[in-house]
This record gives sequence, C-alpha cells and structure tokens, in this order.
Amino acid sequence: MTRAAADLVQRIASLGGGPIGGGWTAHFLARGYDVVSYLHDPREEESFRKVVDTAWISLETLGLAEGANRARLRITCDLAEAVRDAEFVQESAPEDLAIKQALYEQLGHLVPQNVVIASSTSGLTMSEIQVRCPTPERTAIGHPFNPPYLLPLVEIVGGARSDAKAVQWTCDFYRAAGKAPLVLKKEIPGFVATRLQEALWREALHMVANGEATPQDIDLALINGPGPRLALMGQCMAFHVACGAGGMATNLDQFGLALKLPWTRLAAPELTPELRNRMVEGCNEMAGGGISRTWQPNVTAASSPS
Amino acid sequence: MTRAAADLVQRIASLGGGPIGGGWTAHFLARGYDVVSYLHDPREEESFRKVVDTAWISLETLGLAEGANRARLRITCDLAEAVRDAEFVQESAPEDLAIKQALYEQLGHLVPQNVVIASSTSGLTMSEIQVRCPTPERTAIGHPFNPPYLLPLVEIVGGARSDAKAVQWTCDFYRAAGKAPLVLKKEIPGFVATRLQEALWREALHMVANGEATPQDIDLALINGPGPRLALMGQCMAFHVACGAGGMATNLDQFGLALKLPWTRLAAPELTPELRNRMVEGCNEMAGGGISRTWQPNVTAASSPS
Repeated sequence: MTRAAADLVQRIASLGGGPIGGGWTAHFLARGYDVVSYLHDPREEESFRKVVDTAWISLETLGLAEGANRARLRITCDLAEAVRDAEFVQESAPEDLAIKQALYEQLGHLVPQNVVIASSTSGLTMSEIQVRCPTPERTAIGHPFNPPYLLPLVEIVGGARSDAKAVQWTCDFYRAAGKAPLVLKKEIPGFVATRLQEALWREALHMVANGEATPQDIDLALINGPGPRLALMGQCMAFHVACGAGGMATNLDQFGLALKLPWTRLAAPELTPELRNRMVEGCNEMAGGGISRTWQPNVTAASSPS
Repeated sequence: MTRAAADLVQRIASLGGGPIGGGWTAHFLARGYDVVSYLHDPREEESFRKVVDTAWISLETLGLAEGANRARLRITCDLAEAVRDAEFVQESAPEDLAIKQALYEQLGHLVPQNVVIASSTSGLTMSEIQVRCPTPERTAIGHPFNPPYLLPLVEIVGGARSDAKAVQWTCDFYRAAGKAPLVLKKEIPGFVATRLQEALWREALHMVANGEATPQDIDLALINGPGPRLALMGQCMAFHVACGAGGMATNLDQFGLALKLPWTRLAAPELTPELRNRMVEGCNEMAGGGISRTWQPNVTAASSPS
C-alpha cells in the first residue's frame, strides 16, 4: 500500500484513552478528519468522551474545520479494527516501555504497510520502542505539548530503524493537520521543549526546597514575566531584540560573563566561538525573515537581558 | 518628611536614560503620574524620547489612565533637581556596582527623607548597592521584567540595611501603579524570574553547543509549546492541573522519579517529604483561590493616581 499524500489523509487512528489520546482525538476531529479511537478497556469510554467534549468547547470557539463533527468519531476496543483503514496512527499508550514495545510488535503487523505510526511518548525514544516492531521503518515520535488540542507544537524524531522519508512525511502531515512540527536533529531525552521546561522546573524546585520562593511565587513570576513574552517571542529572539542593533552578538560578547554567575543551579556550557556564532547566525536569520516577522511585537530595544 | 501613602503618590523621579529607564518612564506616564527623568548626559535625550514614544504606541492601545500625558514628563541632567520633589525614585543606572554605590551615596542625601529609592538592577543585590548610602533604610530592589511598560512583574527585596516597612511600601506602591509585585523571601542572585529564565537559557545553549537544536528550533518550540501556556498558567499549576484530581501530589508521587532522568543538564533537588508537601500545599492553595486572580494580564482599573 502506498502512503497517502500528507495533505490528503482522511482517516486517523488514535490509540489511548487518557488525556493525551483524548486530546489528539479532539484535535483531529476539529480539523475535519474521521477518527477511530482505540481504548484498552471499554470502561474508559465515559472519561474519554468527557475529555473530547471538554476540548470541544474550546475548539468550537477557536473555529472548526469545514465538516468537522464529533459524529465522525468511532470508538473501539479492537486494535485490529481501529487501525485497519487508518492512513495515520497516533499512539498515546501508557508511558511504559514494555507496554509500548509489545504494542508496536502488534501494530507492525496490523497497521497497513507504509502507514506512519507516531508515538506521543514524552520520555522514551523510538529506538527503544521500535525494537520488537516488524516494520519499524514507518515509526516515529510525534510528541505533542499538553493539551494537544490547544498547543501547536509537535516534536518529531525517528528511531535508529526509522526511514528518513517517513519522518519527513510525519512532519508534513502534522503541518497539514494544523500543528507546528519541529523535526529534531537527534534523539535526546526530553526532546527540546521538555528539556527547556524541565530545566526551569528543577530550578523552581530548588528554590522551593531552599525557602527562596513558594510555588505561588514561582507561578506569579512566570505569568507576569517570562510567560507572556515567551508566547510571542522565543528566548533567543527576546535576547537578540533586547540588545538593539548589536543583537545576539552584543548579548553574548557583553553579557557572556553572566553565564558564570550563580543565577541558576545549572552550569552553562563554555561559550566557545563556535557556540557564539551559531547563536548569532541563528538569530540573524530569524530576525531577517522566516518566522520572526510574525513574532515582532512592538518592543523597544533594551540593553540588559533581564 | 512623611512617606506619602502608596496609592497617593503623584510625582516620580526615574533615573537613567537607557531602555529600562525609558520603559519605566513610559509606564509611569501612562498611569497618570508626573515624571521627572534624569539623564546622565544631555545627548541621551533623543534616544530616550524615542524609547518613550515607541512605548506610547502600545500604551495608548492598552489604555491610558485618566490624565495620562507625555507632557507631564520633564527631563533634566541635574540629579538634585530630578529628585527634589519626588515621592518615589526608580533608579535604572548602568549595571555597575561602583556606579550604583556612588549614586546611592549621593541619593541618600538628595532624595527627601523617607522617600523610597528602588533599583531596577537585575544582577546586583541591595546589600551591595546600599553600602555607601547614608540613608539605606528606604532603599530596595524593584526589578522589572523587560519591557517594563508591558510586562507586569516587579521583583522586590530589601538589602541588609533596608527597613521592612519601606519594602512593604514599595510593594504597595507598585501594585497601585499597575504592576504585579512579588516580594522575595531572600536576596538571591537573579531573583526568581531571571533564575527560571536563566535555567532555560543555559539548557538552550547546551543544546545548541551539542548540535541538538538550533536557535530557531529553540524559539519555535517555546512559542508553540511552553510559552503560551506560561502566559496563562505557571509551571506549578500546569503540572497540578495536568494530573487531574490528584494534582501536584500525584505529579510528585508518580513522576518524581523523572527528576532523576537526564531531561536537562540541571540536577534536581532531593524530593524530600518537606519539598513534596510545600509543592502540594502551594498548589492546593492556588487551586482554591489564591493567585489565580493574578493570572489575568495586569490591566487593573486605570484609575488616575492624581
């Protein structure tokens, strides 16, 4: 069977009855796909439908695709039936390596040839998950950010035995499905977004442990400070813009010493010329076009990276 | 001289011609205060006015307080004149300890007795800054998040010789001036928000240094993932809500082991029962009311202070 063109997919199988599986199901339904959702246990149906219905309130407000309808959802506890006609499979089974490996062994047989199986896992790698899969070449990570029906990010990366073409197709498909796909350069634990969030989270725990801040302080600071800015502008562009005409080059050349200061428990990497140049070139590219245009709110130049 | 009631302040001195000084000046003008801005060098006036005028475009859109007017700005290069009638002083001089110490020695004489002098410093402590100040009891940190006229957060902490009453007044004043004040428990390098941001930033630099991500990848991930969520909900509440009825207790009891995983270069603190309980209690309090009120972007009633 030939893989469907990424923008012509119509039928999706969403595996898993938890909040991530339910969130994905709601997203795909809202985008006008036919969705078959597989639940491990029929008793999950009530809570599963509740996740979808709750999501739907927001999705209707945000605007549904033409033809989008919850009636296009079918629920089954038969895995073979769930994936039989699927043109894309989103797997959101529990975060347990043994469960995922056994599941991919089955899916490798059941899912039509060449159809991509993407895993929502946040903590495992596809190289581990696909070891018992008889057809691993069409498997990849497709890690959403919670809730999957509101936040656009999906991080994509194949395993050792994934086909690069399947990974690229996965990226194209997510884009067609209204997500913001990010194909990772390497399989790294936590991918990109969770690593950034986890660094912040661990520093927060240190502060609470040391009596330097309460959870309330942490959240108040985030919501009124870095949060709103990060919704519009990533940290790289925020520092680039804050340094006026000099941009990231000024930031690193002038404030690079601050990387040695104890402003977090996380030690910084050495600021080599290579790292400096990668940061500067990346920011200049963003500032010169690409996605940066849509980010640029009305922000004045600032000299301090605070 | 008696300190004015925090909500009756009318005249502010804003010291410093850079983007932070300019951003503060714009904010205070938009809130309906009379502002005298001190510039170190008359040649800074053009760029300073540009900062204020650029900020004004956004501030007009967001809504000015009654009577707010850029004509209520006076610019001077005479420090004594700048602070003579001030009821509050916001200091945004360069981030250089020697400069700040010399400045506070002067200000300690020039600023009317009891009037609070707050420093915008992001990297120094008030204990260091106030060492040569003859009247240190009314000095405190009032660290904004850039740009100060858009992001509500101000982190407040006194130095060793600051009076707790002056610190509390500073908090009350910022709240009256439309900011979201956070009084810190301790003087810690980077305060709270910058520590969180710096942990994230250093992890980002590690990823770029290791070829795991480009600056573009970092920013795409932030803008489409953690960013929009952090604008509405801090990391503590995000994890609390994500774990359903069990909340933060479930998060830590079930996923606490993930703190040992290499999802960032930052080692987590030990998850002691004390830390667990502090996190759980803080989140339960927030969920029950508490700071959820401050989640809304800070556009409090623009009541004129005059």
